[in-house]
Amino acid sequence: MDFLSIFLKDFVAQLQSPTLAFLIGGMIIAALGSELVIPESICTIIVFMLLTKIGLTGGIAIRNSNLTQMVLPMIFAIMVGIIVVFIARYTLAKLPKVKVVDAIATGGLFGAVSGSTMAAGLTVLEEQKIPYEAWAGALYPFMDIPALVTAIVVANIYLNKKKRKEAAYSTEQTVAAGDYPDQKDYPSSRQEYLSEQKEKGDGDNRVKIWPIIKESLQGSALSAMLLGLALGLFTRPESVYKSFYDPAFRGLLSILMLVMGIEAWSRIGELRKVAQWYVVYSVVAPFVHGLIAFGLGMIAHQVAGFSMGGVVILAVIASSSSDISGPPTLRAGIPSANPSAYIGASTAVGTPVAIGICIPFFIGLAQAITQQAGK
Amino acid sequence: MDFLSIFLKDFVAQLQSPTLAFLIGGMIIAALGSELVIPESICTIIVFMLLTKIGLTGGIAIRNSNLTQMVLPMIFAIMVGIIVVFIARYTLAKLPKVKVVDAIATGGLFGAVSGSTMAAGLTVLEEQKIPYEAWAGALYPFMDIPALVTAIVVANIYLNKKKRKEAAYSTEQTVAAGDYPDQKDYPSSRQEYLSEQKEKGDGDNRVKIWPIIKESLQGSALSAMLLGLALGLFTRPESVYKSFYDPAFRGLLSILMLVMGIEAWSRIGELRKVAQWYVVYSVVAPFVHGLIAFGLGMIAHQVAGFSMGGVVILAVIASSSSDISGPPTLRAGIPSANPSAYIGASTAVGTPVAIGICIPFFIGLAQAITQQAGK
Amino acid sequence: MDFLSIFLKDFVAQLQSPTLAFLIGGMIIAALGSELVIPESICTIIVFMLLTKIGLTGGIAIRNSNLTQMVLPMIFAIMVGIIVVFIARYTLAKLPKVKVVDAIATGGLFGAVSGSTMAAGLTVLEEQKIPYEAWAGALYPFMDIPALVTAIVVANIYLNKKKRKEAAYSTEQTVAAGDYPDQKDYPSSRQEYLSEQKEKGDGDNRVKIWPIIKESLQGSALSAMLLGLALGLFTRPESVYKSFYDPAFRGLLSILMLVMGIEAWSRIGELRKVAQWYVVYSVVAPFVHGLIAFGLGMIAHQVAGFSMGGVVILAVIASSSSDISGPPTLRAGIPSANPSAYIGASTAVGTPVAIGICIPFFIGLAQAITQQAGK
Repeated sequence: MDFLSIFLKDFVAQLQSPTLAFLIGGMIIAALGSELVIPESICTIIVFMLLTKIGLTGGIAIRNSNLTQMVLPMIFAIMVGIIVVFIARYTLAKLPKVKVVDAIATGGLFGAVSGSTMAAGLTVLEEQKIPYEAWAGALYPFMDIPALVTAIVVANIYLNKKKRKEAAYSTEQTVAAGDYPDQKDYPSSRQEYLSEQKEKGDGDNRVKIWPIIKESLQGSALSAMLLGLALGLFTRPESVYKSFYDPAFRGLLSILMLVMGIEAWSRIGELRKVAQWYVVYSVVAPFVHGLIAFGLGMIAHQVAGFSMGGVVILAVIASSSSDISGPPTLRAGIPSANPSAYIGASTAVGTPVAIGICIPFFIGLAQAITQQAGK
Repeated sequence: MDFLSIFLKDFVAQLQSPTLAFLIGGMIIAALGSELVIPESICTIIVFMLLTKIGLTGGIAIRNSNLTQMVLPMIFAIMVGIIVVFIARYTLAKLPKVKVVDAIATGGLFGAVSGSTMAAGLTVLEEQKIPYEAWAGALYPFMDIPALVTAIVVANIYLNKKKRKEAAYSTEQTVAAGDYPDQKDYPSSRQEYLSEQKEKGDGDNRVKIWPIIKESLQGSALSAMLLGLALGLFTRPESVYKSFYDPAFRGLLSILMLVMGIEAWSRIGELRKVAQWYVVYSVVAPFVHGLIAFGLGMIAHQVAGFSMGGVVILAVIASSSSDISGPPTLRAGIPSANPSAYIGASTAVGTPVAIGICIPFFIGLAQAITQQAGK
Repeated sequence: MDFLSIFLKDFVAQLQSPTLAFLIGGMIIAALGSELVIPESICTIIVFMLLTKIGLTGGIAIRNSNLTQMVLPMIFAIMVGIIVVFIARYTLAKLPKVKVVDAIATGGLFGAVSGSTMAAGLTVLEEQKIPYEAWAGALYPFMDIPALVTAIVVANIYLNKKKRKEAAYSTEQTVAAGDYPDQKDYPSSRQEYLSEQKEKGDGDNRVKIWPIIKESLQGSALSAMLLGLALGLFTRPESVYKSFYDPAFRGLLSILMLVMGIEAWSRIGELRKVAQWYVVYSVVAPFVHGLIAFGLGMIAHQVAGFSMGGVVILAVIASSSSDISGPPTLRAGIPSANPSAYIGASTAVGTPVAIGICIPFFIGLAQAITQQAGK
C-alpha cells in the first residue's frame, strides 16, 4: 500500500512535469483538432541544439572526471547501456504485435539515464549516510550515450534487413510473374541483379553492418551528439554551454515534446493491442537492468574497491530511463518509431517505478550485503 | 498644461520602449527599401512561444490566486474584456471608411491589459496609501484573455458573413447573367446550391456561430494560448516558464514587432483617411472602459466588500491597452487586420492616456467617493 | 623564444575558444561526411539577431559616451577602419591567385575589432598603471562598423565591375560572332545597348558607386546592423538587449560558426595555393594597422591632449581582428567570400599576434615615448 501510494504520487508528479505535460498537451490539442503546427526547420534546429547540449554535457563531465580511477565501473556502465538495448530487442520486440523499431527505441530510452532519477538516488544515499565516490555521478554519460547510439544502430540494421527482404521478395515475385519483357537484356542484367541480391542476403549478418553503423553515426542525430561530445572533451565550450545550451535546454525540449505529442496522437491507435506489453516491460525492466548493473558493480566492488554506494548509483542509473536526452535523440535517429510507445512506457511507468521502488530496493540490498559482510 | 506635459513625456517614453521602437524601426527600414526579411517559419515559432507564454502566465496566475474570494470582481473583469470588443465593433467599426476587422482588432487590444500600466497604477495606490486586495493584480488575465478570444471570434464571424454575402452576390450575378450553359445539370445541382445558400443566409445570425468559435479556438493562435493556459493551470510548468518562456518573451516580441513594422509600412496608406477616428477612439476609450469597470467594481464593493483600491485597479486594467499580449495574438488570429491601425492606436495614444490621465482620474474619483461616504 | 611560447599558448587557447572550436568542429564533421544540416531559415534569423546585437552594442556604447570629448580619436578610429580595408584591397588582393573578395573580406575582419583583444589590452594597461580616458573603450564601434560597411561596399563595387566586364566582353563576342540575326532592330536597339555599356564603362569609377553603396546598405546584413545601431542610439532598448540579444549572442554565434565550418570545408581546397599569403598578411597586418592608428593617436595626443594610454588602446583595437562581429556580417554581406580564408587568417593567426605581440609592443613604444618626452 505504501509502495503503491509512493508510486501514484510519483506518477502524478511525472504527469505534471513540464516534459510530460507538454507531451500530453500536444496529444490533447491534436485530439481537439488544433491547427497548431511547429515548422519543420524549427524542429530541426531544436533537435540539433538538444543533442549538441547532451553531447557537451557528457563531454565536459568526462573531461572533468578522473578516468583512471573509474575505469572498471565506466566499462560496466557502457556494457549495461548496450546490453539494455539488446534485451529489449530480444524480449519486448518479440512479443506479439509489438513493432520492432518501437521496442528498440524503448530499449534505448531505458538504457539512457534520467538525471532526476539519479539525483533522487544520490539524495537518498546522502540521507542514509552511505558513502560513495564523488565521481560516481559522472558515470551516467558512459551509459546514456552508448545506449542511444546502440539503439539507433540496431534499429537501422533492422530496417535495412527488412527493406532488403522486401526487395528480394518483390524481385522473386517479378521473376515468377513476368518472364516475358526485357528478354534481350535478361540474361546479363537480371542475373547480375539477382546474384547481387543473393550476396547481400548472405552478407546481412556480418559484412554489411559497418556501413550501417557509419551511416548511423553520420546521421544528423548522432553527428550532433558526437560533435558536442568531442567539443566538450577537447575544447573549452563552458562559456557558451552555460550561457546558451544549458539554459535553453528545457524550454526547447518542451516545444519538441509538444510536437512529439501531436505526432504521437495520430499513432496512439497502434498501441491499443500492445499497451499491456509496454506496461509489463516498463515495470520489470528497471529491476532487471538495475540487477545486472548491481551485479557488475559488485564485481568492481570486489576487484577494484568500488564503494557499495557507488554500486547503488550504478544500479539506479541502469534502472532509470531517460526523459531528457532520449526523446530528441530517438525522434531524429529512429524517425519511424512511435513516440507514444517509447515515451509513454519510459516516462509514465518506468520513471515512477525507478524512483519510487528501485531506489529503496537497491539501497536495502546494498545495506543487507554490507551487514552480511560485516558479520 | 500639466496633463499635456505628462502625456507628452509618456508618449516619448512609449516611442522609446523596445516594443514600439522595433515597430517604428521596421517601418523605417521598410520605407528605406531594406531587403531584410524574417523567415515565415521563424515568425510562426515566435508567435507560438509568445502566445504559449501569455497563456502560461495567465494560467499560473489563476492557479496561484484564491478564486472563491475574487469570484465577483473576476466575473466583472471577464465581462469588461468582452464588452470592450463589442463597443469597438459597434462604434469605431461604424465610423466612415474604418475597416471592420481593424476596428475589432483595436477593440481587442484595448480590452487586453498592459502589465506596465497596471504596475504604474499599483505604484500610485501604494504611494497614496490606499489599501487594496493582494490578489487584485491577478484579475488581469480574466480581462486579457477573454478580450483577445472575443476579438478573434467576432472578427472571424464578421469575415465569414462577408464572404458568404459575396458568394451569394456572385451567385445571383451568375444566375442573372448566364442561364445558358450547363443546362443539363441545372435543375438539380444549381437549385440545390441556391437553396443551400439561402439556408446559410437565414442561419447566419444564430446557427453558424458555434462552428466559427470552434474554428477560432482551433486556430494556431488561440490553441497555443489556451494550451499555455491549461498547462499553467493544471501542471507545474514553473521551471520551464522561468528559464525559457519568460526571459525570451521581450526579445522575441521585439523581432515580431519589427516584422509587424515592415508589414505595417505597406499598409499605412490605408490609415490616411481614418487616422483621426483612431485618435478620437484612443483618447475616449480608456475613460469609457475604465468607467464601466469602475461602475461594476462599485457593485462588487457594495455586495462583496471589494476594496476601493481594488475598484481602482479594475478600472485601470480596463482603461489600459495591451502592448504585449495583444499584437502577437492578433497578428496570428486576425491576419487581415492592419497592425499600423491597432498598435498605433493603442500603444502610441491609448497607453499614455491610460497612464498619464486615467490613473490619477480614477484614484481621485475613488477618494472623492470614500470621503463622501465618510461624511 | 618567449614570444613564440606566448604566441603558441594564445594559438591553442584560440583553437579551444567556442568560436573557433565550433568552426573546426563543423569542418571535421563535414570531412567525416555528416548529414547534419542547419536549415537556411535558422541561419537567416541567427544572422539577423547577431547583426542587430552588434548594432545595438555599438549604438548604446555611442549614446553613453561623451562625443564632444572624443571627437578627434573617434574620427581617427573611423579613418583606420576604412583604411585597413583599402590596404587589403591593394596589397593582399593583388597577390598571385588570391581571390579579391576573399582579400576584401579579410581586410574587413582585420579592420573590425575584437572585444577580447581590447579587454586584454585594457587589463595590461591597468596592470602597468598607465592612465587612459574612461571612454577610450567606446572608440571600438567607430572602427568596427565602418570597417565592415566599407568591406561590403568595396566587395560589391568589385563584383559589380567584374560582372559588367564579363557582360561587355560577351557583348563584344556577340557582335563579332553574329552580325546576322535580328538585323531589323539592329541599328536602334543594339547601338543603344552598346552605347549604354560604354557609358557604364566610363562611369564605373565615379557615377555608379552610390547606387551600389545604397544597395549594400539596403542588404539584409547592413540594414540589420544599422537598424540596431539606430535603435541603440535613439531609443532605450537596454531591457531587451540585456535579457535577450546579449545573452543569446555567443550561443547563436557558435551555431553559425558550425555552419560556416561546414561551408568552409568544401572550399578549403581553394586556399592550397594561397595559404602562405594569408599567413604573411596576418602576421604583418596587425603591426601595420596598429602603427597607423598609433601615429594618428599621437596627433590627437599633441593636438587634443589624448592620453598615451588612449593612444595604445587605439593602436590595439586597430591591430585586433574581429572574431565576433565580423564572421556573421561578412557571411551575409559578402556571401561569395570564402570563410576558411578570412576567419582562418584573422582568428587563427591575427588574434594571437595581436594579443601576444602587438599589445606588449605598443605599450613598450608608448612608455619609450613618454620617457623620452620626460627627459
